[in-house]
Amino acid sequence: MDKINKVTVLGTGVLGSQIAFQTAYSGFEVSVYDIDEAAIAKARQRFDALVERYEQEVPGADGPKLHTALARIGFFTDLGAAVADTDLVIEAIPEVLELKRQTYARLGQLAPGKTIFATNSSTLLPSKMKDATGRPDRFLALHFANEIWKYNTAEVMGTDDTDPKVFDALVDFAAAIGMVPIPVRKEKAGYVLNSLLVPLLNAAAELAAGGYADPHDVDKVWRSATGAPLGPFQIYDVIGLTTPYNILSNGDEHEQQLAAWLKANYIDHGKLGVASGEGFYVYQPVV
Amino acid sequence: MDKINKVTVLGTGVLGSQIAFQTAYSGFEVSVYDIDEAAIAKARQRFDALVERYEQEVPGADGPKLHTALARIGFFTDLGAAVADTDLVIEAIPEVLELKRQTYARLGQLAPGKTIFATNSSTLLPSKMKDATGRPDRFLALHFANEIWKYNTAEVMGTDDTDPKVFDALVDFAAAIGMVPIPVRKEKAGYVLNSLLVPLLNAAAELAAGGYADPHDVDKVWRSATGAPLGPFQIYDVIGLTTPYNILSNGDEHEQQLAAWLKANYIDHGKLGVASGEGFYVYQPVV
Repeated sequence: MDKINKVTVLGTGVLGSQIAFQTAYSGFEVSVYDIDEAAIAKARQRFDALVERYEQEVPGADGPKLHTALARIGFFTDLGAAVADTDLVIEAIPEVLELKRQTYARLGQLAPGKTIFATNSSTLLPSKMKDATGRPDRFLALHFANEIWKYNTAEVMGTDDTDPKVFDALVDFAAAIGMVPIPVRKEKAGYVLNSLLVPLLNAAAELAAGGYADPHDVDKVWRSATGAPLGPFQIYDVIGLTTPYNILSNGDEHEQQLAAWLKANYIDHGKLGVASGEGFYVYQPVV
Repeated sequence: MDKINKVTVLGTGVLGSQIAFQTAYSGFEVSVYDIDEAAIAKARQRFDALVERYEQEVPGADGPKLHTALARIGFFTDLGAAVADTDLVIEAIPEVLELKRQTYARLGQLAPGKTIFATNSSTLLPSKMKDATGRPDRFLALHFANEIWKYNTAEVMGTDDTDPKVFDALVDFAAAIGMVPIPVRKEKAGYVLNSLLVPLLNAAAELAAGGYADPHDVDKVWRSATGAPLGPFQIYDVIGLTTPYNILSNGDEHEQQLAAWLKANYIDHGKLGVASGEGFYVYQPVV
């Protein structure tokens, strides 16, 4: 397995821009691709904002280092040019299966045979896309968390077809860009984090929706007993209530009842979490 | 509702002695009851050990305060004498339903009519004992966590028969002894904490037993994403693997598979958690 030197990130949204910047900051040559010049202009703004965040939050991240990182990023609206001679493509485009499959089909034609493809998808399993890539042995998931400079786990998850050497190379790459690599040995919806978080959040909703205990009291018990900084309802607020609501709405009858409770008591009142200023708690606006 | 002034604690095991000492430390007059002089002698040792723990771990807990607390505790092997004129009995005897029911039947005869009975049971629902008390309106659960001076939540949970004034009095009492009271409004096996913890621990076991991810990696993701000090497998080790194993063994087929995995890979090798020196992690003995 050749060493990964050049990395292309597809999609410059919240997470795509973070992945690209963290990779460049770690010394790799990075190409970013997005669909048009307007998207690229927005990407440049995102990178400027990331420079500020890193200056404030990443120990040792001073101006010269950050501008060297920025200078390592090339911008492309031509997919072929973005992936020419790249070792790794990290795909962070919208979570629409058909869009991803079409993109992988094009990528499979345009990228060199050596190139590894990794999807950052959090909700779509890589096995749903692998055939579209034309190279299922060199395709897998590499899943980052939001604010990757702080929440620096990277879950690496292949399909049955992923070459173990490719898997190991991605584990090494994740470590090389400052992540804690988490190998997920078998394909699993939700990877590790959501496989843990969803049962906890559902159990909390059950306690409150069932009238057993108030959300704030549930959080108090959890924080006190486990030492965690946030209780489950504080986590709901950070995530935003819409995503858990959507997941529960697609669940069994019992989960649909929990979804209905979230909707009637919170979502319908505009209480969507931290981003809306109120969820299970009220938040002060950041001036 | 008369104010609670005098408190009797039945059972001087790990938690009973902590409840008694914390109550005395908070200024209440406390009687402790145990079955014989040998148990009482052991209780005195437990209180001496608690004095040392408080000195080290409780801000402001100096020698004079702690010895004043000790002096507020009376010792009894005669149940009638232990509960004469007491306002509240907190029961912390072994988790054997028939033993508790027999004890409540005797208590119902011996204690004054005003006395409230509270069980610290973590695994038995108060509704399973209420009829034995002869005063179901003055009976409820008051559930403490181990090391109550640090993990200071107290879950208050009544049955359908509990007088709301008694419930409120116990909420006030819990606050008066330095606890964060957690009102549990409807009877629920596992109260709040285990209703949250069990689904999280089961989900973690499923990830590891299913071959998706290593326990240490599961913990890394959880700590990184939630900021919690301990991942689920570290929590298993703190609790000890035997209790989760027993709970899973009594569950459905899937839970029994998780129990079998815990047994074959850990329990059968003497890996029982922190107390045995090894569980999912290896621990240094405390010299």
